[in-house]
Amino acid sequence: MATTRFARTPTPPYFAVIFSSLREGADPAYERTAERMLALAAEQPGYLGVESVRDGDGFGITVSYWRDESSIQRWRLHAEHAEARRRGREDWYRHFELRVARVERAHGGPREPHD
Amino acid sequence: MATTRFARTPTPPYFAVIFSSLREGADPAYERTAERMLALAAEQPGYLGVESVRDGDGFGITVSYWRDESSIQRWRLHAEHAEARRRGREDWYRHFELRVARVERAHGGPREPHD
Repeated sequence: MATTRFARTPTPPYFAVIFSSLREGADPAYERTAERMLALAAEQPGYLGVESVRDGDGFGITVSYWRDESSIQRWRLHAEHAEARRRGREDWYRHFELRVARVERAHGGPREPHD
Repeated sequence: MATTRFARTPTPPYFAVIFSSLREGADPAYERTAERMLALAAEQPGYLGVESVRDGDGFGITVSYWRDESSIQRWRLHAEHAEARRRGREDWYRHFELRVARVERAHGGPREPHD
């Protein structure tokens, strides 16, 4: 039921890319590209999962999880992803903050997420 | 304009607590407690900022930023926060995942967030 919203990450350590953003405008190409990027990221080596949410004011947080820094770097250099980031900077985001972090410890509760 | 949604964090390294959660029910006490916890966290030593978003389906991500692990640990032991977490586990969250991570690098764009 809650299956799709939580990432099934392994025991730490692993890496997180925390992307906070404020959208502007209402370009339908944005939604298509965002969905395409989620699907494409999931095919990359070292990808562990993603959690993503955006509210009605256009503010969103997407956290993607990766095995190591080199996986993040390789995804960053993927041509289609680089082009999507360029569109994001030029057309879609009023502002964003991107932080790369090493997950040291993690726990979940109170019930199983995937029942 | 976008002032309130992005955290003004310093140059890394610093720490992030990534809290992903799925709400259930519609207890008005939840909103009050959540706001109180954001205000109380902001008063703690080592607090650097917070970014938070929840969508209409009740899925949310809150990332709080801290100077070091001991600040996170101290906040965890704060009595009012401990009680709020207990209520969260028992009454408010269908599921949550909490991850503590060390932010290694960060950048923002494309315009200033606080103009």
